[in-house]
Amino acid sequence: MRPSQRRPDQLRPLRFTRGFTRHAEGSVLVEFGDTRVLCTASVESRVPPFLKGQGSGWITAEYGMLPRSTDRRTDREAARGKQSGRTQEIQRLIGRSLRASADLRALGERSITLDCDVLQADGGTRTAAITGAWVALRDAIDGLIARGELATNPLQSQVAAVSVGIYKGVPVLDLDYAEDSTAETDMNLVMDGEGRFIEIQGTAEGTPFSRDEMDALLTLGANGIRQIQAAQRAALSG
Amino acid sequence: MRPSQRRPDQLRPLRFTRGFTRHAEGSVLVEFGDTRVLCTASVESRVPPFLKGQGSGWITAEYGMLPRSTDRRTDREAARGKQSGRTQEIQRLIGRSLRASADLRALGERSITLDCDVLQADGGTRTAAITGAWVALRDAIDGLIARGELATNPLQSQVAAVSVGIYKGVPVLDLDYAEDSTAETDMNLVMDGEGRFIEIQGTAEGTPFSRDEMDALLTLGANGIRQIQAAQRAALSG
Amino acid sequence: MRPSQRRPDQLRPLRFTRGFTRHAEGSVLVEFGDTRVLCTASVESRVPPFLKGQGSGWITAEYGMLPRSTDRRTDREAARGKQSGRTQEIQRLIGRSLRASADLRALGERSITLDCDVLQADGGTRTAAITGAWVALRDAIDGLIARGELATNPLQSQVAAVSVGIYKGVPVLDLDYAEDSTAETDMNLVMDGEGRFIEIQGTAEGTPFSRDEMDALLTLGANGIRQIQAAQRAALSG
Amino acid sequence: MRPSQRRPDQLRPLRFTRGFTRHAEGSVLVEFGDTRVLCTASVESRVPPFLKGQGSGWITAEYGMLPRSTDRRTDREAARGKQSGRTQEIQRLIGRSLRASADLRALGERSITLDCDVLQADGGTRTAAITGAWVALRDAIDGLIARGELATNPLQSQVAAVSVGIYKGVPVLDLDYAEDSTAETDMNLVMDGEGRFIEIQGTAEGTPFSRDEMDALLTLGANGIRQIQAAQRAALSG
Amino acid sequence: MRPSQRRPDQLRPLRFTRGFTRHAEGSVLVEFGDTRVLCTASVESRVPPFLKGQGSGWITAEYGMLPRSTDRRTDREAARGKQSGRTQEIQRLIGRSLRASADLRALGERSITLDCDVLQADGGTRTAAITGAWVALRDAIDGLIARGELATNPLQSQVAAVSVGIYKGVPVLDLDYAEDSTAETDMNLVMDGEGRFIEIQGTAEGTPFSRDEMDALLTLGANGIRQIQAAQRAALSG
Amino acid sequence: MRPSQRRPDQLRPLRFTRGFTRHAEGSVLVEFGDTRVLCTASVESRVPPFLKGQGSGWITAEYGMLPRSTDRRTDREAARGKQSGRTQEIQRLIGRSLRASADLRALGERSITLDCDVLQADGGTRTAAITGAWVALRDAIDGLIARGELATNPLQSQVAAVSVGIYKGVPVLDLDYAEDSTAETDMNLVMDGEGRFIEIQGTAEGTPFSRDEMDALLTLGANGIRQIQAAQRAALSG
Repeated sequence: MRPSQRRPDQLRPLRFTRGFTRHAEGSVLVEFGDTRVLCTASVESRVPPFLKGQGSGWITAEYGMLPRSTDRRTDREAARGKQSGRTQEIQRLIGRSLRASADLRALGERSITLDCDVLQADGGTRTAAITGAWVALRDAIDGLIARGELATNPLQSQVAAVSVGIYKGVPVLDLDYAEDSTAETDMNLVMDGEGRFIEIQGTAEGTPFSRDEMDALLTLGANGIRQIQAAQRAALSG
Repeated sequence: MRPSQRRPDQLRPLRFTRGFTRHAEGSVLVEFGDTRVLCTASVESRVPPFLKGQGSGWITAEYGMLPRSTDRRTDREAARGKQSGRTQEIQRLIGRSLRASADLRALGERSITLDCDVLQADGGTRTAAITGAWVALRDAIDGLIARGELATNPLQSQVAAVSVGIYKGVPVLDLDYAEDSTAETDMNLVMDGEGRFIEIQGTAEGTPFSRDEMDALLTLGANGIRQIQAAQRAALSG
Repeated sequence: MRPSQRRPDQLRPLRFTRGFTRHAEGSVLVEFGDTRVLCTASVESRVPPFLKGQGSGWITAEYGMLPRSTDRRTDREAARGKQSGRTQEIQRLIGRSLRASADLRALGERSITLDCDVLQADGGTRTAAITGAWVALRDAIDGLIARGELATNPLQSQVAAVSVGIYKGVPVLDLDYAEDSTAETDMNLVMDGEGRFIEIQGTAEGTPFSRDEMDALLTLGANGIRQIQAAQRAALSG
Repeated sequence: MRPSQRRPDQLRPLRFTRGFTRHAEGSVLVEFGDTRVLCTASVESRVPPFLKGQGSGWITAEYGMLPRSTDRRTDREAARGKQSGRTQEIQRLIGRSLRASADLRALGERSITLDCDVLQADGGTRTAAITGAWVALRDAIDGLIARGELATNPLQSQVAAVSVGIYKGVPVLDLDYAEDSTAETDMNLVMDGEGRFIEIQGTAEGTPFSRDEMDALLTLGANGIRQIQAAQRAALSG
Repeated sequence: MRPSQRRPDQLRPLRFTRGFTRHAEGSVLVEFGDTRVLCTASVESRVPPFLKGQGSGWITAEYGMLPRSTDRRTDREAARGKQSGRTQEIQRLIGRSLRASADLRALGERSITLDCDVLQADGGTRTAAITGAWVALRDAIDGLIARGELATNPLQSQVAAVSVGIYKGVPVLDLDYAEDSTAETDMNLVMDGEGRFIEIQGTAEGTPFSRDEMDALLTLGANGIRQIQAAQRAALSG
Repeated sequence: MRPSQRRPDQLRPLRFTRGFTRHAEGSVLVEFGDTRVLCTASVESRVPPFLKGQGSGWITAEYGMLPRSTDRRTDREAARGKQSGRTQEIQRLIGRSLRASADLRALGERSITLDCDVLQADGGTRTAAITGAWVALRDAIDGLIARGELATNPLQSQVAAVSVGIYKGVPVLDLDYAEDSTAETDMNLVMDGEGRFIEIQGTAEGTPFSRDEMDALLTLGANGIRQIQAAQRAALSG
C-alpha cells in the first residue's frame, strides 16, 4: 500500500498554471501533487560564445530549490557560493531533454533559458521541472511565431518526464517524497511524443535490480508519460 | 499623474496569503500590486557560533530574486557564485528590521530565518519583503507558543515598511517600477507599531532633495505604513 | 557627557593631508579624530562595459579596512576571498554619493576610482571616506583641467558626510567608536554644498526613534556638514 | 563498420596494472584501449560529519582529467577554481556505484576515497573509472583484512561498468571517442556480479531511441560486463 | 650610473616609524626611500588547528598592496576574490623568515600575525616588509614581556632583508622600481643577526648569471643587511 | 649516511619516458628515483591578452599533485576550489625557468603550456618537473620545426634543475622525501646549459646557513645539473 493510497500505476493530480508570472515569455507553475515548480522561459536574441555566427540557437535550463521548499531548510546556494553537484546534474538533464525535442537551427540565433524553481518539494522535482518547462518553452515559441519572429516551429516533439521506482518490492509510478526516500530503486524517464526514450537514469539505492524489474519499470513509466503528455496538450489548448 | 493612475498618497492593492507553502513554520505570499514575494520563516533549535551558550536567540533573513521575476532575465546568483552587493544590502536590512521588533533573549536558543524570494518584481521588493516577513515571523512564533515551546511572545512590536519618493517633482507613496526607475529620490522607511522609525534609507538618484521634501516624504511614509500595518493585522486575524 | 568630553554638537578635530602618496592623481589622508582613511583617486581613460561608446564617464569607489585598523584584528577580505556585505554596502554608498555631485557626461569617457582604505578606525569611517574621497576627486579633476584634458569642470557641487546618533538619549554629532558601539540610533548623512540631502541612512540599533528625534538629528547633521565643507575648502585652497 | 574495426559486441583490450603507484592502499591503472585511468584507494580512519558516531563507514570518489589527457587541452579545474558539472556528475556516479557493492557498517568508522584521474582519454572514462576503482577498492580492503583491521569483508558484490550506444544505427559495445562523439545514443551501465543493475544512464544525443533499441543495448551491455568482470577477477588473482 | 644617483653599494634612506597606528601590539611604518610599508603585529591567544594543544606558538604574515600604491592602479584583491600567486609567495616568505628567528615553543600558545600593507611602492616591497615586520614583531614581544605575559624572549635573532641585482651589468644594492623593472637579475636575501642566510631567492629576468656574479651579489647583500640591522637596532632603542 | 645509502653527491636514478601519452605535442614521464612527474607540452596558436598583436609567443606552466601521490592523501585542489600558495609558487617557478631558455619572439604568436602532474612524490617534485618539462617543451618545438611551422629554434639553452640541502650537517644532492622533511636547509637550483644560474631558491628550515655552506651547496648543485643535462640530451637523442 502506497502512503498516498494511490494504485501502483496511478499518477498524482497534475496541474499546469500558464501565465503564472507576467514578465517571462513562458511562465508555468506545474504541480505533481504537492510538488510545485515554477518554470519560466526567457527568450534572448544572443547565443553562447561557442555558437556565435553559426546560425543555430540554444536551449538551456537552470534549476533551484527555494531554501524552505523542503521539509527542513536547506542552505541557499547563492549564499554558499556554489551550486551543488545535484543541482548541476538536474539542470544539465533538463537542458538536454528539451534540446532533444527541438531543431536548434530552426530557432535562429536565439537562446531560450528555462528557469525551474521549486517552490514546494514532495519528490519528483526534476521530472516535474522537465514536464513544466516543456510547456513554458512551447508558450515562448508560440509567442515568437505569433509575433512573426519565427516562420517555422522548431519544436519537433513533445517532451515529458516521470519517475518510477521499486517501493517495498513493487514497481510504482510517480513517487512522492515518502516513497522516494525509502525506495530500493529510483528511475527517471524522459520520453518524446512518439513514446521513444530521450533520457533514462536509474539508480539502485538499496538492492540492485534485475532485468525483469527494469522491464516492468519501463512499461510503467511509458504508460505514465502518455497520461502526462495528454495533460500537457490539454493545458496548452486550455 | 502617476503611471498607475494612483493618487500620490495611494498604496497599491495589498494582499497577504498565509500558508502559501506547507513545510515552513510561517509562509506568506505578500503582494504589493504586481510585486510578489514569498516569505518563509524557518525555526531551528540552534544559534550562530557567536551566540552559543548565551541564552539568546537570533533572527536573520536571506533575499533572492528568481531570474525571471524581472522584465529582463537577471543572472542566477547561485550560478554566478556570489550574491550581489544589492542582495546583501537588502537581506541585512530585512534582518535588522525584524530583530528591532523582538526580544532575542525571550526567543531562547533558537534561530528563525526569513527567506524572502521575489517571484515577480514591480518595484518595492525590499519593503514588501520586510512587511511580509514580519507576518511569517509572527505565524512562526504563534506556532511556537501554541505548541508550548515558548511561554512569552518575544515580538514586542509590529514592523512594516514602504517606499516613498519624488516622482516628477511630487512626493509619492509606494512606487512601482515605472516610477522607481525614473524617480529623482527614492526612500525606504521601516517603522514599528508605535509609528517610530526603525530604518530610513534615502537616496537622491538625480537632484539632491531639500529638508522640506524630506519632511513631506516622512509624513507620507508614516501614513502609508499605518495602512499597511492595519492590513497585516487583518491578515493575521483572518 | 560624551566619552571624548566633546559637546553634543562638536566635531572631532578634522585634518586633510593632500598628496599623502605620490602615484595617484589625487591622494588625501583624511582624519576625523583617530579615524584615518587614505583616499586615492585614480583616473583611467576607459569606462565600464555598460557605458562603452555612450560619451559618458564613470566615478566609482572601493573601500577596505586594513586588518589591524580595528581594536581586534579582523580577517583580511582578500584572504577570505570575498568582501563582506558591510564593505559592499559602504563602497556602493561612497560611489553613489560622489556621482551625485558630478556631470558624468562632462567627464568624457574616463573612469575615476576612489580607493578608500582605513588605516586606523575609531568610528565614522564611511563618512570620513566620502568626505576625503571628494577632496581626492577634486584634486584629480583639477589636474585634468590643468593639463588641458578637460575643458569644463564636471563637479557640480561639494560633497561631505557626517554621522549623527542618539547616545544616552542625547542627539550627538560625529560619533567615535566608544559612542557608536553603544548608540541607540546611528545615522549617516551625505549632503551637497547647498545643504541638500544626497543620502540618508539611519538605523535604530536599540529603541526605535521618534519623528522629533529624527528632526533633531537632521538639524545637527546639517550644521556639522557645513563646518566639514568649510574645512574641505580650506584644505583645497591650502 | 566501427572506426577501430571491432565487431559491434567486441570490447577494447582491457588491462589492469595493480600497484601502479606505491603510497595508496590500492593503486590500479586501468586501460580500456587507449583510455587510461589511474584509480587509487585511500583509507582513512575517520568518517564525514554526517556519519560521526554511527558505527558506519563511507566510500566516496573523486574524478579528474589531466589537462592534456584529451585531444585538445582542457582547462585545469583547480586553476579555474571549480569542478565542472560533468566532473561532479561522474564522481557522484562512481561513489554511488561502489557504495552499492558494500556493507558500510561492516567497514567500521573508516572512509575510503577512490581518486580516479584520467591520464589519457579515448571515450568511456567514467565506466573505466568505476571498473578500475572497484579493483583498487578490493585491494585496499584485502589489505585491511590481511593486517587484521577488518574481520569480515564488507564487499558484497563485484562491480563493473561499460558503455553501449547506437552508432550509425547499430548497437555497439564499449564506444571509443571516435564513436562516442557521433553516436545517436550513449548509455552507461553499472552492474553487480549477479548481473543486476546498479546504475543505468542513457541519453539520446541525436534521435530518441525505441524500446527495442533499449532492449538490445541492455543485452549487449550485460554481455560486455560479464567479460569485464572476468578480467577483474583475473587481475586480482594475478 | 643608477637612476637615483646612488653608488652601487648604497642603500636608500631608511626610516622606521614605530607606533604608526594605535591599536596593534606592534605598528611600524618602514620606508626604504619611496617604498612605504605599514607593518602591524597582532597578538592573539590562540593557535591554528594544526598546533592545538602542542604547547607551541605561531608567527605568520599577510601581505597586500593598496590598489594605488603603484604607478598604475592594480585591482583590489578583495574585490577580485583571490590573492595573486605573487601575494601568496611574498606572505609565505615573510612568515618563514620571521619564524626562523623565533623559538615558537617559548612563545606559548599564542599567534602573532604580521600584516604588511604597502602604502606606496617603489621596488623592494617584500624586503622592506620583512625588515619592518621584524621591528613590529619585536615591539609586540617586548610588550608581552613588559606585561609579564612572557618570561623569556622567544626571539633568538635579528632578521632583515634586502634586494640585490645586476643592473646594466653592475651588481647593485637595494633596487628601486626604475632599476628593478629593467634589471637582468633580481635577488632577495634574508639574513639573521649573525650574518647567516635565512632565505635566498634569485631570478635571472634576462640573461642567466654566473657563479662570479652570484658571489658578488651575496657579498653586496651581506654588507647592506649589516647596515639595515644597525638601523633596526637604532629604531628600537630610540 | 643517507637513508637511501647514496653518497652525498649522488643523484637518484633518472629516467625520461618520451611519448608517455599520445595527445600532447610533448609528453614526458620523468622519474627521479620514486618521484614521477608527467610533463605534457600543449601548443596553441593564441597568446594571453597582454601579448596580443605583439608578435611574441608565451610559455607557461601549471603544476598539480594527484591526491594520493603523497604518503597521506592531500585534498584535491579542484574540489577545494583553489590552488594552494605552494602550487602557485611552483608553477610560477617552472614557467619562469622555461621562459628563460627561449626567445619568445622566435616562437611567433603561439602559447606552449607545460602541465606538470605528480603521479608519485618522493621529494624534489618541482625540480623534476622543470627538468622533465624542458624535454617535453623541446619535443613540442622539434615537432613544430619538423612540420615547417617554425623556421628557427626559439630554444636558446638547455634547462635543468636539482635540489641540494644540508642533511645532518652534510651538504647533499637531490634530496628524497626522507631527507627533505628533516633537512636543515633546502635549496633549489635551476641552471642553463652553460652552467649559469636561472633561479636559486634556498630556505633555512632549521638553522640559518653560513656563506661557506652556501658555497658548498652551489658547487654540489652545479655538478648534479651537469649530469642531469647529459641525461636529458641522451633521452632526446634516444
